[in-house]
Amino acid sequence: MGKERVTVIDIAHAAGVSKSTVSLVLQASPLVNEVTRAKVNAVIRELGYVYNRGAANLRQSNSKSKIIGIVVNDLTNSFFAELAVGVDMVVQSAGYVQFLANTAESVDRQREVIASMREHGISGLILSPARGTEAADLKSLVASGIPVVNVVRQVAGAKVSSLVSDNHAGVSAAVRHLAGLGHHRIAFLGGFPDTAVFSERLQGYRDALSDMDLAVHDELVVSSAPSRAGGVAAIERALLLRERPTAAVCFNDAVAFGVCDGLRAHRLDPGEDFAVIGFDDVIEAQTAVPALTTVSVDPQGMGRRAAQLLLKQINAGRAEAEAIVSSVRLVVRQSCGSASDKRERLSLL
Amino acid sequence: MGKERVTVIDIAHAAGVSKSTVSLVLQASPLVNEVTRAKVNAVIRELGYVYNRGAANLRQSNSKSKIIGIVVNDLTNSFFAELAVGVDMVVQSAGYVQFLANTAESVDRQREVIASMREHGISGLILSPARGTEAADLKSLVASGIPVVNVVRQVAGAKVSSLVSDNHAGVSAAVRHLAGLGHHRIAFLGGFPDTAVFSERLQGYRDALSDMDLAVHDELVVSSAPSRAGGVAAIERALLLRERPTAAVCFNDAVAFGVCDGLRAHRLDPGEDFAVIGFDDVIEAQTAVPALTTVSVDPQGMGRRAAQLLLKQINAGRAEAEAIVSSVRLVVRQSCGSASDKRERLSLL
Repeated sequence: MGKERVTVIDIAHAAGVSKSTVSLVLQASPLVNEVTRAKVNAVIRELGYVYNRGAANLRQSNSKSKIIGIVVNDLTNSFFAELAVGVDMVVQSAGYVQFLANTAESVDRQREVIASMREHGISGLILSPARGTEAADLKSLVASGIPVVNVVRQVAGAKVSSLVSDNHAGVSAAVRHLAGLGHHRIAFLGGFPDTAVFSERLQGYRDALSDMDLAVHDELVVSSAPSRAGGVAAIERALLLRERPTAAVCFNDAVAFGVCDGLRAHRLDPGEDFAVIGFDDVIEAQTAVPALTTVSVDPQGMGRRAAQLLLKQINAGRAEAEAIVSSVRLVVRQSCGSASDKRERLSLL
Repeated sequence: MGKERVTVIDIAHAAGVSKSTVSLVLQASPLVNEVTRAKVNAVIRELGYVYNRGAANLRQSNSKSKIIGIVVNDLTNSFFAELAVGVDMVVQSAGYVQFLANTAESVDRQREVIASMREHGISGLILSPARGTEAADLKSLVASGIPVVNVVRQVAGAKVSSLVSDNHAGVSAAVRHLAGLGHHRIAFLGGFPDTAVFSERLQGYRDALSDMDLAVHDELVVSSAPSRAGGVAAIERALLLRERPTAAVCFNDAVAFGVCDGLRAHRLDPGEDFAVIGFDDVIEAQTAVPALTTVSVDPQGMGRRAAQLLLKQINAGRAEAEAIVSSVRLVVRQSCGSASDKRERLSLL
């Protein structure tokens, strides 16, 4: 659709260099010195030349674009926006551009966006799989040899690298902290029960209760969508119990914020009347009032690590699957009440 | 990098149809009946065939990919995530895939991601320009004839379509509502002063104060980053004033949530001790406690409208610039206190 298509020859003329020098600059070759490169790039910007990467890819025997794809399952959860920002930091400095697509938990949409990304020759893919993704869904992608890093959620049997959090240890630490503050009725709120992440976190909850010699009550496990609205719904149901919980470990920070909202709607003060712990450590966890105690995954950091893992595979030229479980740590802020506060409050009751 | 590349001939054999039928299915031609299309698509999925869109684009005289690019300036603001979800709804049903990139307010990064999207033959671009974008930055893009819709922020002199909110009317309505509730000292909190959106909203604030015969005090205008953390910082500064405001219109919902956080940190109850109004109406505005009174832009709706405007231009085959100013409406919820509450509270003071 271009009006007057600028060619490599136009650029070579304007910059006073040879056509092949321009080509080398376009290919980011190290054979061109900095001064020449800067001059050529200035002319390219000035004339508005667009490198036809599609054509270039077809011409090159070793077809490589400079795109990293990232496909997430819920862009409205700020965790994924932060993850994408982390990925961007790393791929940008490596000379890649990141294209992001959202599946909104639809396996069908996931198939479409991955197909489109493959058509456009992505160098690698970071995928937080939609709920219900099976190894078969990733089979042809794996067979193609494109490096893939699954984040957040693993897909059983898929032969791709994965970077997930230590869900069991994170929730266990949170439960032990609450038990140490004197809580006996600790709820586990939010999350879809049909996901591996939920199972791992729930197991961490159960094991920690047993470790602390606390009874496990199934009624204290209230699943919901892993969103702020889901958190409001979950705490509503938990507050209807005859014996109410006094604390909750939430599936993620979004749920935890919703739980805080729901508590306030009942005139209960999160951090004072009810202890709340999240999972993720999104940016808002620090600035929220009360600041959220949470299991820190550091979404941007996870994005950076996933990007580094992917780039390593791209540069190695082969996709050898690695499974990495990131350690997590409990960051204690105000939403769970401090040990001393708790004792003070209990002594007043 | 494929191991054994599946060809159109393989698919034709397996599906028991001709090669040209497979080609027609790949081009989404209406000439193929539904039964045949379904059969061919099933084989394509089974064999893991990847349509080489880059090669196809080069083969076709009327080169068109099926990608819509969306470039946003701050993916960590949930407004943009919701906008992208709205765009996705529309482009998906039109058979497009959306690739999103984040500039984090960097004009340099914006240049890179737009260049990369152009290389990959996007059909059109939805752009929320990075702070400081000038018409010159979009010149070669415009010259290429690729349809562009600027959202949220306009770029003066750029010959592209734009879809922005009626910023002046929105903030004016918010100020008049607060004045009607009896507030005399109304602050305007948050936002970068060097943006057109800020200027328009600030003018709406000033004009409405004048309309309501209230004095305009420059000290009540406190700019900050348009984020939750920015909101916390802005209210901190506003509360240091000798004569404190009793209400605030905030640059956007993110700032408003931060203002609510900051008020709580000072043991002030948003909606009871201080009235807060936001701008955007992100999903969280409804579920927050107190639910946020805000100027509703409906980010998903804006995304849908922007996508429709873009598709109209793509289908028309020419990029005729249209400037649309979306009307907005004030949605009154709890964070500004109701009229009756206000009178009650004032009578107690």
